[in-house]
Amino acid sequence: MTTAVIAGVGPGLGESIARRFAAEGCDLGLIARSADFLDRLAADLPTDAVGVSADLSDAADVTTAFDQIREELGPVDVLVNHASAASWTGLLDTTLDAFDRAYEVGPRADFLCSQAAVHDMLDEDRGAPGGTIIFTGATTSVRGRRGAVSFSMAKFGSRGLAESMARELGPEGVHVAHVVIDGGILGPDVETDTPEEYLDPDAVADSYWHLVEQDRSAWTLELDLRPHVEEF
Amino acid sequence: MTTAVIAGVGPGLGESIARRFAAEGCDLGLIARSADFLDRLAADLPTDAVGVSADLSDAADVTTAFDQIREELGPVDVLVNHASAASWTGLLDTTLDAFDRAYEVGPRADFLCSQAAVHDMLDEDRGAPGGTIIFTGATTSVRGRRGAVSFSMAKFGSRGLAESMARELGPEGVHVAHVVIDGGILGPDVETDTPEEYLDPDAVADSYWHLVEQDRSAWTLELDLRPHVEEF
Amino acid sequence: MTTAVIAGVGPGLGESIARRFAAEGCDLGLIARSADFLDRLAADLPTDAVGVSADLSDAADVTTAFDQIREELGPVDVLVNHASAASWTGLLDTTLDAFDRAYEVGPRADFLCSQAAVHDMLDEDRGAPGGTIIFTGATTSVRGRRGAVSFSMAKFGSRGLAESMARELGPEGVHVAHVVIDGGILGPDVETDTPEEYLDPDAVADSYWHLVEQDRSAWTLELDLRPHVEEF
Amino acid sequence: MTTAVIAGVGPGLGESIARRFAAEGCDLGLIARSADFLDRLAADLPTDAVGVSADLSDAADVTTAFDQIREELGPVDVLVNHASAASWTGLLDTTLDAFDRAYEVGPRADFLCSQAAVHDMLDEDRGAPGGTIIFTGATTSVRGRRGAVSFSMAKFGSRGLAESMARELGPEGVHVAHVVIDGGILGPDVETDTPEEYLDPDAVADSYWHLVEQDRSAWTLELDLRPHVEEF
Repeated sequence: MTTAVIAGVGPGLGESIARRFAAEGCDLGLIARSADFLDRLAADLPTDAVGVSADLSDAADVTTAFDQIREELGPVDVLVNHASAASWTGLLDTTLDAFDRAYEVGPRADFLCSQAAVHDMLDEDRGAPGGTIIFTGATTSVRGRRGAVSFSMAKFGSRGLAESMARELGPEGVHVAHVVIDGGILGPDVETDTPEEYLDPDAVADSYWHLVEQDRSAWTLELDLRPHVEEF
Repeated sequence: MTTAVIAGVGPGLGESIARRFAAEGCDLGLIARSADFLDRLAADLPTDAVGVSADLSDAADVTTAFDQIREELGPVDVLVNHASAASWTGLLDTTLDAFDRAYEVGPRADFLCSQAAVHDMLDEDRGAPGGTIIFTGATTSVRGRRGAVSFSMAKFGSRGLAESMARELGPEGVHVAHVVIDGGILGPDVETDTPEEYLDPDAVADSYWHLVEQDRSAWTLELDLRPHVEEF
Repeated sequence: MTTAVIAGVGPGLGESIARRFAAEGCDLGLIARSADFLDRLAADLPTDAVGVSADLSDAADVTTAFDQIREELGPVDVLVNHASAASWTGLLDTTLDAFDRAYEVGPRADFLCSQAAVHDMLDEDRGAPGGTIIFTGATTSVRGRRGAVSFSMAKFGSRGLAESMARELGPEGVHVAHVVIDGGILGPDVETDTPEEYLDPDAVADSYWHLVEQDRSAWTLELDLRPHVEEF
Repeated sequence: MTTAVIAGVGPGLGESIARRFAAEGCDLGLIARSADFLDRLAADLPTDAVGVSADLSDAADVTTAFDQIREELGPVDVLVNHASAASWTGLLDTTLDAFDRAYEVGPRADFLCSQAAVHDMLDEDRGAPGGTIIFTGATTSVRGRRGAVSFSMAKFGSRGLAESMARELGPEGVHVAHVVIDGGILGPDVETDTPEEYLDPDAVADSYWHLVEQDRSAWTLELDLRPHVEEF
């Protein structure tokens, strides 16, 4: 049985990934701020699922969350680093607190969760060490966005972390991948007359699962995803 | 029934793609120089398959090949631009003929095959226009290689063509994708004591099929593939 | 005395490069289709200058042109690969002739001129072998453009050639650089009320000269140039 | 008179940039930890120079440093974001403190210094608003390095910040550029028998000055620099 953790899960893409992974038989560890959402989602999944309310920018919270998941579901096989905090302010309008916050819920949370999960993945007592860590990136991960200094810093930073980890952990059997989501996601809060301009989160989740399933002889570090009508 | 054409199919990755697509129910049009190989592969596939011996650098040959495939299998839904001619010579050691040849079996063949196939994909009489065109790229597609001037030119050129086509044809419902294969492929001609350093062509074919299956709300333009032990 | 060749020189950027290099003391070899323009420009430069009318897609023409320049000005120290043929047609509207033409005046001409020039640069009888080869790129060199399949193929192809040559020739003392010009150039044919939206060709030429002057301990492979108001 | 600030100046490249900018007539504000080095360098420059000992990860220190420089030399025209903290540890061997530290002396320091300097650059009372902000990047800025998770995160993060700022501030007349230094710098602490494998810091400083001098009609966002013998 595969145990997957989604760090920073919410309605929309995070939920679609959880549902898709559960449909493939994974037990799910779900980490986010909102206990209510986690409880409802966990109860609705067909496999064992544990929701843990935690602040991913808090190292102790992260440790506690992974300990609880590990205790209930066993060692972690798959991690999705899904948290981020988009903010749309330029250089002069961004406070130091906001800049720090983008770091804390971005690359720093990715780092904390990756450390917490990779111990299980590399545990040689488990027969076949290995695992998958997927980073959810954005257009801004590869193209610094005007009027979004902290988000650009954070998304680039997470991508740099992912690339470094991929080179370190690939030979150890841990697949690190970075997904560049280039467009808006059709989450439950989106009202639109042109849904074809958005990414369907279930369709995005298909590619996340494909990354988990890839044979280690042909791993992807990075792929992009966008609606077919997206100008790019 | 989906009809897929593999332009430049050979033993190794091309064959694995053909077998995987056939296993998914596709009829296969196979184009290459060697009639013998084509006949054997076509006879061995579980679905209808047509092998056409053709020189992809010859416009008339390409037209004839696609006409024959279309006549026997119906309109083309999927095209894999798989031909290329690696050559390992630097600036002074490369003849103009060799440079031209790299162009002709590279981006020029991709262009000819794409034109031949896309008419079917855009045909509005077919109910739901659409299709998939996948380019087989290499490390050299994104990083000019020392001592390989013609191959670097050709692989970059094909990638430029693919990107341009993706932006043009995506809104029309045709998914254009470019796969960067970063490493050696474990084809039938490879003898090695370290097979884990190679890409298993069947594993690569899994990602090609994933690209075909992607929902149009979340299409990938480019993904890379490499063995987990590859230094990159 | 430094001898610089500009292959594909015309009014606008090519002329500005010629004038700037001449102002720095270079003798100039100028190659283009139009003899009239070449003669006028050559006559107006403060240093020795030779204009040669030639078709850069014709190998014999290129050889003849470089022989004539070499005879009159001595061995070539600097080459600017400046020719290209923009065309704005999509996949279905591009003829094979137009696609071939983009290759011939693009990467193929770059290849022919580079071969012709690099012999001089690597000539060990010259005391200090070395030289500079600069490719004029465009936005489309790094981002395939919708509705411009042949131009995207050609500009990517030239960039791949440049990268390969840089890795091969750098250790030999030949500096290969690729300039990505991201925007319209304020050439003599441009009429506009918003000149600040264009690149001043004299300003672009400053960066070309900087590339020539760079010390070999700190060479640039690629730089981009754009007007400060350009959205990108 | 131009006032340039080098944040994170040290022996080697920082010092070479200071000397080159001073040779071009700039007054220099120098910020670093070591008061001794700053005093010696400031005293040795031909123009007015102010050394301020400060911790760039401390917001109050940064404010104080820029206030002092502004008071003594006038408003800031040029900023070089030069601080960074390379560390060579992989995912499991990196402490949270070290990861945070890489952020604090990397993108966070760049952010603080940029905010402090850009007010002067955008000050409309100064006649012609404008300025230059240069980020010192590294190979790791564009390629996540195995066994260097925090440095990869930080250098990518700074590059994302630089790109975002370039798009925001370019139209306001502030030139933001990012220099990718691909190789080791021949600083005073390097002992080697193969100096040609290193970047000469004076040669690197030439390109920094070129970026300052570029006309706003043809600005560079990014250029790379490496020794001519470097494999890349």
